[in-house]
Amino acid sequence: MKALLWITYCGKDFCGFQVQPNRRTVQSVLQDAIQALFGVRYDVVGCSRTDSGVHAERFACLIQAPLEALSLSRERIPTALNAYLPQDLSVISAVAVADDFHPRYCQHEKEYEYRIWNANYENPLQSGFCAFVPQPLCIEAMQQAAQDFVGTQDFSSFCAAGAKVTDPVRTVSACTVSKEGEQIIIRVRADGFLYHMVRILAGTLIGIGTGRYAPTAIKEMLKQKNRAAAGATAAAQGLFLHRVYYPNVDCP
Amino acid sequence: MKALLWITYCGKDFCGFQVQPNRRTVQSVLQDAIQALFGVRYDVVGCSRTDSGVHAERFACLIQAPLEALSLSRERIPTALNAYLPQDLSVISAVAVADDFHPRYCQHEKEYEYRIWNANYENPLQSGFCAFVPQPLCIEAMQQAAQDFVGTQDFSSFCAAGAKVTDPVRTVSACTVSKEGEQIIIRVRADGFLYHMVRILAGTLIGIGTGRYAPTAIKEMLKQKNRAAAGATAAAQGLFLHRVYYPNVDCP
Repeated sequence: MKALLWITYCGKDFCGFQVQPNRRTVQSVLQDAIQALFGVRYDVVGCSRTDSGVHAERFACLIQAPLEALSLSRERIPTALNAYLPQDLSVISAVAVADDFHPRYCQHEKEYEYRIWNANYENPLQSGFCAFVPQPLCIEAMQQAAQDFVGTQDFSSFCAAGAKVTDPVRTVSACTVSKEGEQIIIRVRADGFLYHMVRILAGTLIGIGTGRYAPTAIKEMLKQKNRAAAGATAAAQGLFLHRVYYPNVDCP
Repeated sequence: MKALLWITYCGKDFCGFQVQPNRRTVQSVLQDAIQALFGVRYDVVGCSRTDSGVHAERFACLIQAPLEALSLSRERIPTALNAYLPQDLSVISAVAVADDFHPRYCQHEKEYEYRIWNANYENPLQSGFCAFVPQPLCIEAMQQAAQDFVGTQDFSSFCAAGAKVTDPVRTVSACTVSKEGEQIIIRVRADGFLYHMVRILAGTLIGIGTGRYAPTAIKEMLKQKNRAAAGATAAAQGLFLHRVYYPNVDCP
């Protein structure tokens, strides 16, 4: 068995998850803490790369070591690791998974949340945690359009130009838009996401909200299989990895 | 007529509202923007002093100048001022009030919110916006105790030691405790607050939640009229000025 960690982090000061030379990343900070705690720099494998500035409410990552090799029982790992972690990264829990479990390649769904602050003034209490859109957004148009993302489809138009993808087909099981006061939240759940897919989807829905695109435009955009057909890439700071769903491992 | 500004700010990098020499305060940053916009450093008068680190979702302050003296119409003031303000301070709206209106001395009620993150790990997405309490809190005990704050009472026990107060009687019209996931929110509404009153009230309710004090302890604490009778002063970072209620001016 191995230990799967459920972590949460604020993306503001991280250059994404994955180790990069001379950059502060979630993976490297986590490995620093693991080394400090266990005396060994075990690898950690994440459920996703994430861009700089993107946040995670729940993110799954695996310590690449047999549970028995660790000098602490599984239940004690979160609190012990948190003692070595900075304020912008916390371990929520640790669960035992089979040795061949892989957070990214095992079947799963991820749910992202994109948060928009839609008012004529910026919200200082949400700074770095939402995209600011001062133009009025038509929520009904966005809600109607969001439904057209659902299904098993070729999402080439919603993938960053130049990204190398062998198979651009993904299955989106839900895509919703809700409004609470001045905050608009886009939620999208899928079995996988292409590079920048949620941010392009959010930018396109914002374009539909402002009236730049028709609420019916998504189908045609998908059909074109061309990044230029879709809307702008929305800012990273509004994006949260909300939950990860594995068949046999509960998201806390 | 004068312009009453409704503002919102993140308290992390402010030393409270009131001007202090060599400190970054909300009042001084606001006056800098007013001076940059109007060419005159008009005074602003706030509805409350607030401590360092305390946030405001809504805060009322008055520009001490006749509306006619300002070079912009009232409707245009928020956007114009926001162009000169930093990211942690925004003007929401500007309303016209009578010349003798005073944000602090006119009859009003203020509602504060105190936010607690109650889990065995810190929440990096709420860092600086809540007090972290890792011990389990009994929400029912806190809810029962909160009701004893309601009424017109002498709150001397809930005032910072050494604070000079001529009249320690305040009328608390509502005090509630609610829970949403791992977040516990204390809300208290009153016609005025003594120095540190909400933070001592919150610290005491936390002490009731952990079982340090009985749920019925508040009445006796109030009776003693002695700061030493109440609980600890909770951290400033969990405190938000939530709303301000004036009889004739709507809070946005």
